Amino acid sequence: MTGPENVKLIIFDCFGTVVDWRGSIIEDLSKWGEQKGLSIDWALLADLWRGSYEPQMGRVRSGEIPWTNLDDLHFESLQAVLSELHAPELGQLDLMYINRVWHRLNPWPDAVEGLERLKRKFVIGPLSNANVSLLVNMAKFANLPWDHAFSCELYQHYKPDPETYLGVCRMMYLDPEEVMLCASHNYDLVAARECGLRTAFIPRSTEYGPGQKTDLTAEQEWDVIASDLIEFATEMSA
Amino acid sequence: MTGPENVKLIIFDCFGTVVDWRGSIIEDLSKWGEQKGLSIDWALLADLWRGSYEPQMGRVRSGEIPWTNLDDLHFESLQAVLSELHAPELGQLDLMYINRVWHRLNPWPDAVEGLERLKRKFVIGPLSNANVSLLVNMAKFANLPWDHAFSCELYQHYKPDPETYLGVCRMMYLDPEEVMLCASHNYDLVAARECGLRTAFIPRSTEYGPGQKTDLTAEQEWDVIASDLIEFATEMSA
Repeated sequence: MTGPENVKLIIFDCFGTVVDWRGSIIEDLSKWGEQKGLSIDWALLADLWRGSYEPQMGRVRSGEIPWTNLDDLHFESLQAVLSELHAPELGQLDLMYINRVWHRLNPWPDAVEGLERLKRKFVIGPLSNANVSLLVNMAKFANLPWDHAFSCELYQHYKPDPETYLGVCRMMYLDPEEVMLCASHNYDLVAARECGLRTAFIPRSTEYGPGQKTDLTAEQEWDVIASDLIEFATEMSA
Repeated sequence: MTGPENVKLIIFDCFGTVVDWRGSIIEDLSKWGEQKGLSIDWALLADLWRGSYEPQMGRVRSGEIPWTNLDDLHFESLQAVLSELHAPELGQLDLMYINRVWHRLNPWPDAVEGLERLKRKFVIGPLSNANVSLLVNMAKFANLPWDHAFSCELYQHYKPDPETYLGVCRMMYLDPEEVMLCASHNYDLVAARECGLRTAFIPRSTEYGPGQKTDLTAEQEWDVIASDLIEFATEMSA
């Protein structure tokens, strides 16, 4: 099996597909919390925080609130989650440190090697709901060799709105079939395919922790299905 | 002399500062024109074409026409220049090939090494009037290791409008004094300094050819003045 022809640009979902957000948050904040003497269940915090991700973006997508960058949505929901966990009162600097953990996420072990190979043959970049600064800082932290950060901030729409996938095509003057989305979430690929993009699925079966039940397998015949980003690079002859 | 403290992001003018647009256009199109059997004075074409750059952007900056990407402004002025030169009638594919020469520009000999050193310590990116696709394609062609392309397209304003310099600061959540513009054109640095950015000047005394009379020296005491991007990296301790 080889990837589809004519692909010039590969865009990647980030949280889950490229970086291990849950493991990174738990590791980073456990270490920091210990130094601070804070007893917070960081795994539970990570899960509740991420649980507010879809509803928070939904408020923007439905028009309930105007465009708001993910950093700001995160900050708002962080405070609600800390309150739900009956966490001790934290100062603004501490809240900002916690909120910026999304800029300090580690890549999955295969990610950097896979992306470096793909970069030699294709233009590569994230297409992520994260704002530009988050994506650029994350790339510096995790050594992700992006050519450009196609943040949803640039289109003022969150995925899976078609404005995001088609915004990338328009910005790069490419036809949808010259652009491929690589993601570990089927819903993202469904939306990209509806816009005419090529699709690649990579399972990340522990993204949500050991009991994950969603996105364990490809739910459609995506153009490429690979076990990780290194195998994906091989499938794309990169 | 060392560079100012607290700089986190360095943005670069591209045409002239990082890439040799005039030499590259003449070299690329002379070779192509010879194969095509076209007798056009490519040096004169490059000069006339670049001469229409400021007036074309001026139409956008003044509000005479709505936002228009540089590729489209180039295409329009290319046709006027070819007509002025009494060039033979060219088909659309040929016109597109010529217009895309701006995506195929060579870096100055010091550029890649200087940028690679700076990238280890700072976030780096172009702040250019060129559209995103042009900047991304140029970076692939010339091996420019940008972290992100801060195209003026993202702000829908051309330099030296303050919306461009401040748009970068806002997008990256940085204070103006944490951002430095490096350019070979004094007017660009004047505008950046007025917005509170740090400034670095690199002379490119043959950008406009052997008879260049402008921007041969720094016209103000910029924060850093260096002979090329390698010396600039050294000044910034990178």
